Amino acid sequence: MTRVFDSELAELKELLLYMGGLVESMIHLSIKSLVEREESVGKEVYGKENEVNKLQIEIDDRCLKLIALNQPAGTDLRFITSAMKINSELERMGDQAINIADASKELLKFSQLKRLIDIPLMADISKTMVKDCLDAFVRADAELARSVLVRDNKVDGLKDQIFRELLTYMLSETKHIPVALELILISRHLERIGDHATNIAEDVIFMVEGQDVRHYQKDVR
Amino acid sequence: MTRVFDSELAELKELLLYMGGLVESMIHLSIKSLVEREESVGKEVYGKENEVNKLQIEIDDRCLKLIALNQPAGTDLRFITSAMKINSELERMGDQAINIADASKELLKFSQLKRLIDIPLMADISKTMVKDCLDAFVRADAELARSVLVRDNKVDGLKDQIFRELLTYMLSETKHIPVALELILISRHLERIGDHATNIAEDVIFMVEGQDVRHYQKDVR
Repeated sequence: MTRVFDSELAELKELLLYMGGLVESMIHLSIKSLVEREESVGKEVYGKENEVNKLQIEIDDRCLKLIALNQPAGTDLRFITSAMKINSELERMGDQAINIADASKELLKFSQLKRLIDIPLMADISKTMVKDCLDAFVRADAELARSVLVRDNKVDGLKDQIFRELLTYMLSETKHIPVALELILISRHLERIGDHATNIAEDVIFMVEGQDVRHYQKDVR
Repeated sequence: MTRVFDSELAELKELLLYMGGLVESMIHLSIKSLVEREESVGKEVYGKENEVNKLQIEIDDRCLKLIALNQPAGTDLRFITSAMKINSELERMGDQAINIADASKELLKFSQLKRLIDIPLMADISKTMVKDCLDAFVRADAELARSVLVRDNKVDGLKDQIFRELLTYMLSETKHIPVALELILISRHLERIGDHATNIAEDVIFMVEGQDVRHYQKDVR
């Protein structure tokens, strides 16, 4: 392949990393607006979503052109089709951050149920998963990708813990139900962010090792 | 392109339609196991998931080979990359049907809260969305794809209606909370199936008209 092609692949990597950074900050801000009960912080999330959406279209176009004009095969082709998948995973993570920002805004109508501990923890782990699955992709680092799969188990464990705890609040007082329900749904949005990062990590392992781990997760973890 | 290439594209279409049929039946059976409270019906869903997972890997491989060996451009290339996206959307719909089957099994531990009406209705609409987004894809029918986007609004409306109704059950009696919560989560799984069908429909419109509707849904609906 030509030097131009190589530099275009490098640009594609940069764009995906940049998009990943935006998604991380969307997660960060949506949880910040939840914890600090600040509607203005939540609003920043919507601005970033616009940028993520524009990037998604640009990256998709670039990938199609890269394939059409360079007719890559083997590793290069797999890299570009993986980039297309990662692109849509990232956009969907952004959608989940929007869901969290929406729910946080809704929660401002109610008084606080409890100090939030596990949800911010879940968000912190999810953010490292987003960062590391992308780093694993650009560096073709299957080991790092595997560490993302392990963290997804932690996220799922936290989700179950949050569910059980909030259920006890609901059972103790019906007035807690609307708030507890929103918090449960927020934990589900974070779980889905973790799932998207896991999808990317599995794709990286497939790309690097040619080994399809998508339906063999239980062995990997 | 060669005749062999054309017949391989036709096979790809057939495989995706077959996979879509499996996913439809997974949705059907998971809801049947919920409504009829039959664990054995739910078990069939898990068997079909295995088949869906195998198909996902096969279709992905075929797409990569089709690109690498035929170096398509333009419409053909876009068709194959769309097939790859649709493939992963279908697999995720299958995952949601599994979530519903799991929840239905969990619900067998409790007595029935109410006769279910809106959830089966939501499932019926979702199934037509799965069928029609795939038909729209293989026939390159943007009109049919648009009708899927319209139905997604109905699904979202039903989801909100279900949420409000179940909230009243929870508020009236704390003992209803665990069952109502599972039913709310089932409605969210159906919502996600609708979202995946919508993603496919948007991709079809993009493929047919070269028009990116992914972030302009509000105008379309």
